[in-house]
Amino acid sequence: MNQEKLFENIVKKRSFLCVGLDSEMDKIPSFLLKEKDPVFEFNKLIIDSTHEYAVAYKPNVAFYECFGAKGWISLESTVKYIKENYPDIFVIADAKRGDIGNTSKMYAKAFLENLPFDAITVAPYMGEDSVTPFLSYTDKWVVLLALTSNKGADDFQYHDEDGIKLFERVLSVSQKWGTINNLMYVVGATRADMLKDIRQLVPDHFLLVPGVGAQGGSLAEVAKYGMNTKCGLLVNSSRGIIFADSTENFDKVAGEKAREIQLEMEKYLHQHKLI
Amino acid sequence: MNQEKLFENIVKKRSFLCVGLDSEMDKIPSFLLKEKDPVFEFNKLIIDSTHEYAVAYKPNVAFYECFGAKGWISLESTVKYIKENYPDIFVIADAKRGDIGNTSKMYAKAFLENLPFDAITVAPYMGEDSVTPFLSYTDKWVVLLALTSNKGADDFQYHDEDGIKLFERVLSVSQKWGTINNLMYVVGATRADMLKDIRQLVPDHFLLVPGVGAQGGSLAEVAKYGMNTKCGLLVNSSRGIIFADSTENFDKVAGEKAREIQLEMEKYLHQHKLI
Repeated sequence: MNQEKLFENIVKKRSFLCVGLDSEMDKIPSFLLKEKDPVFEFNKLIIDSTHEYAVAYKPNVAFYECFGAKGWISLESTVKYIKENYPDIFVIADAKRGDIGNTSKMYAKAFLENLPFDAITVAPYMGEDSVTPFLSYTDKWVVLLALTSNKGADDFQYHDEDGIKLFERVLSVSQKWGTINNLMYVVGATRADMLKDIRQLVPDHFLLVPGVGAQGGSLAEVAKYGMNTKCGLLVNSSRGIIFADSTENFDKVAGEKAREIQLEMEKYLHQHKLI
Repeated sequence: MNQEKLFENIVKKRSFLCVGLDSEMDKIPSFLLKEKDPVFEFNKLIIDSTHEYAVAYKPNVAFYECFGAKGWISLESTVKYIKENYPDIFVIADAKRGDIGNTSKMYAKAFLENLPFDAITVAPYMGEDSVTPFLSYTDKWVVLLALTSNKGADDFQYHDEDGIKLFERVLSVSQKWGTINNLMYVVGATRADMLKDIRQLVPDHFLLVPGVGAQGGSLAEVAKYGMNTKCGLLVNSSRGIIFADSTENFDKVAGEKAREIQLEMEKYLHQHKLI
C-alpha cells in the first residue's frame, strides 16, 4: 500500500483510527477463555465490530510472544484474518525490532514476507543498516520510533547536539533511507505540542501517534498540529476501545467507542477540508 | 546467576567465550535438513561440541522468529537443552527488545519467565520505563545496547551533548536502573579502542562484546582495554565457530574453533592474573 492509497482509505472511511490489538489474556472477557485460541477469537470479534471505523490495526507483538509458539499462531491468525476479510486495512506489527543488517533482514522476513503485515515498528538506535533491510519490500513500511509517548522518552530522545535533539536527528537523518511511501514515524500524542516543530522536519510523512486515551493525549491537539494535506496521521487507541467492556457485549461496546473516535476524526478531516 | 558466579565459571573454564547461535537455515549442513527440527539438531550438536570452551550461548532470536511458531519451538528447545544439560552456562536471548512499560513487561515474561534465559539484550531508545521491567527478576540480566559493532552505530550513538556522546549517556544514566549483578552492556569489538574510556564510566560492569571474527574485531585489543578484576567480558563469536565447516564434521570443527579462542582467552586471563 502506498501513501495515496492510505489517504484514499482515510477519506473513504472518514477516519484515521488505528486500533491497537494489545490483547492481554488477563483482560479478555472470561467467556472467551474456553475457546481454543481465546486471543484470536477476541481479536476477530473486535475486528468485525470496529473495521468500519478504522483504517489500521496494530497488534502489539509482545502480547503474543509472551505465549511462545502458541502466541505466534494467534498473531498469524489475526493478521491473516484482517488481510483476508478487510484487505484495504493497513496492518502494523508493533514489534520495535532493529539489529545489525543480516539480523534485521531476518526480522523483516518474519513480519513482512512470511506474515502479511504492511508495516513494522523499528527502533533507530543502531542506525541505517539496522533499518534499511525492512525498507527493501515493495508497498511495505517502516514505522520508525522518533519521539515516544512514555516517561522514559526524556532519558535520551532529547539529548541535544548544537540545538538538535536526538529525535530530531532521527527524523532528519532517516529521511534519506526511505520515502514518504515506505517510511513513517512514531510521535507520541502526549507530546502533541511538539508536533508543530516536527512537521517542519517531516511535512509529508505519515505519523503514527500512540498515547491518545489511556495515556492521556488529546486527539484535538494531534489533529491541530499534526495534520497535513494527505491527513498524514494514524492515531492509535488500544485499551480505550478493546477493553472498554468486559461482558459478552464487549465487541459491541468496542464498536461504539471506535465509532465515537471516528466521528471526532471526521470533524477534524472536515475542518482541514480533506473530506 | 550473579556476577560472582559468572566469574567463577570463567575461571573454571579459562574462557569468556559466548557462542552466538545465529543458526541460519540456509547455512546449516544439508544432511541435517531431513531432521524434524534441523535448527535445534544443529544447535544441539554445536552445543555438545563447544560447551567445554564456552561460558555463554546467545541465540539470535531473529533467526528463529523468521520461522514463526515453528521457530519459537526451536528456540525453546535450544534454551531448555542448554539449561538442562549445562546449567552453569549463561544463556542470552539476543532479542533487542524494548517498549513502554506494560509491553516490556510482556517481553520480559516471554524470555525470562516462560523461557529459562538468564539474560536478554534490550535497546535503550525509549528510556528507563522500557528497561526496568526486565530488571525485576532475581538472577536475570539486561544486556543494554551502548555502542554497537555495525556501521550504523555512527548515525546516532555519537550524538554529542556538551562532550557527552549518546552511548556514554546510556552508560551513565542506566547504571542507576540496575546493579553490576543484573545489568551489562553491549560494546562492539570493532570499537575496541573506545573500551578504555568506556571502562572509566563502567569499571565494574560486564560487557558483552560482539564483532570479534567475521565483523573484524580483535580479541587481543578487547582484552587489553576491556578486562577488569572479574574479567568483566563476554566475547561473542558466531559465524566463525558455528559455520566454520559445512560437512558432517561441522560440529567437530566448531569445537576446534571454540577451543582455539578459549586458548587465546586463557592467555589473556593469565596475563591479567585472573587464573
